[in-house]
Amino acid sequence: MSIKILNAQLSPFSARVRLAVYAKGIDAEIVDAFGNTELEAELEKLNPMQKVPTLLHNGMALPESEVICEYLEDLGLGISLRPEDVAGRARMRLLSRIGDLYIMEPMTKLFGHINPKGRDQALVDRELAELDKGIRWLAFYLDGSPYAIGNRLSLADCTLAPMLYFYDQIGPMFGSVDPFAHVPTLGAYYRGLKNDPHVVRVLDELAVALRKVMGR
Amino acid sequence: MSIKILNAQLSPFSARVRLAVYAKGIDAEIVDAFGNTELEAELEKLNPMQKVPTLLHNGMALPESEVICEYLEDLGLGISLRPEDVAGRARMRLLSRIGDLYIMEPMTKLFGHINPKGRDQALVDRELAELDKGIRWLAFYLDGSPYAIGNRLSLADCTLAPMLYFYDQIGPMFGSVDPFAHVPTLGAYYRGLKNDPHVVRVLDELAVALRKVMGR
Repeated sequence: MSIKILNAQLSPFSARVRLAVYAKGIDAEIVDAFGNTELEAELEKLNPMQKVPTLLHNGMALPESEVICEYLEDLGLGISLRPEDVAGRARMRLLSRIGDLYIMEPMTKLFGHINPKGRDQALVDRELAELDKGIRWLAFYLDGSPYAIGNRLSLADCTLAPMLYFYDQIGPMFGSVDPFAHVPTLGAYYRGLKNDPHVVRVLDELAVALRKVMGR
Repeated sequence: MSIKILNAQLSPFSARVRLAVYAKGIDAEIVDAFGNTELEAELEKLNPMQKVPTLLHNGMALPESEVICEYLEDLGLGISLRPEDVAGRARMRLLSRIGDLYIMEPMTKLFGHINPKGRDQALVDRELAELDKGIRWLAFYLDGSPYAIGNRLSLADCTLAPMLYFYDQIGPMFGSVDPFAHVPTLGAYYRGLKNDPHVVRVLDELAVALRKVMGR
């Protein structure tokens, strides 16, 4: 049965799954879920949290980008994005998890306060401090190479590329001219990663979607 | 090389790893990290977030209970706690993730407000509502069977048993006499799971550790 992915173009979690699909070179129908009444109703029935991305396959509706990416690997289709060795796999999962729990959690809270008008400065200061802890922790595990593990793209890069794109974008909105200045290995990693053609494609998609919501 | 786990007896994340170790039947040295100056210094060097559990193996210091449990499976030692089929694995990872992101995140915030004196009621109400969303989402995926997947213990149960123990304990502290009343399949699952001997052992450990901090 074919693979269908309910998507939101600007979601860093949807972008993670799209990047994995592109890099694996597998066939999957990627459809925007929101603004489509039929799909929204389907999503609500299949997945009470109504989160995207949700993968539809073999009668299963699977939310959570991390779980979807591992599932695509377990299916054994296309190019593998999971290292063969156990230590590499552990490192891959750790980096994705630092991204999900310690970077995206505070960053998502900051998204609501991008407009300085009516900004809750105490919340912003607290979440910026949390975000910085997560960023420094991530940097601890990276040496500046263009891929997180070895010399090819893995699921860790699929997680991190969209997150670091948003981190880079929102930095200046909260007063940081160069958000990678104090974490040079992380900055070098992100700059290197941006040379991967699949990463280029996904970051371009994010830039287009971001311009659309920003109205320019 | 032998496996060492830096532990905190009352941490639901450490309890997840202990449950996996017990159920797998593998040899691992489990040591309490905090209050031990030497181990605390080691932990700080190896893992800047100083989180437990941290697994030490083959020169690697691996934090994050979910990542540790997958690593123990990848090593191929002892009894497998990961379903063989791809759909079962996806389900296992989804349930663990709902626990980590949508149950433990709000529950951890509530832990700081157990004492009604000086309680921030607005925060408590907000986090109770978040917790309830996560609990209902989890219940959506469970049919009341004693194990989350099939008829034997998996990593999903290792994640959920300690979390549901704390959910059950804190309910009355925030005014809910039976926190499972509105989610009967989840209640049936938890009651069934508590018959597993490895679950019994870990929940007993949590009860002892909890009595110790509560001073009774």
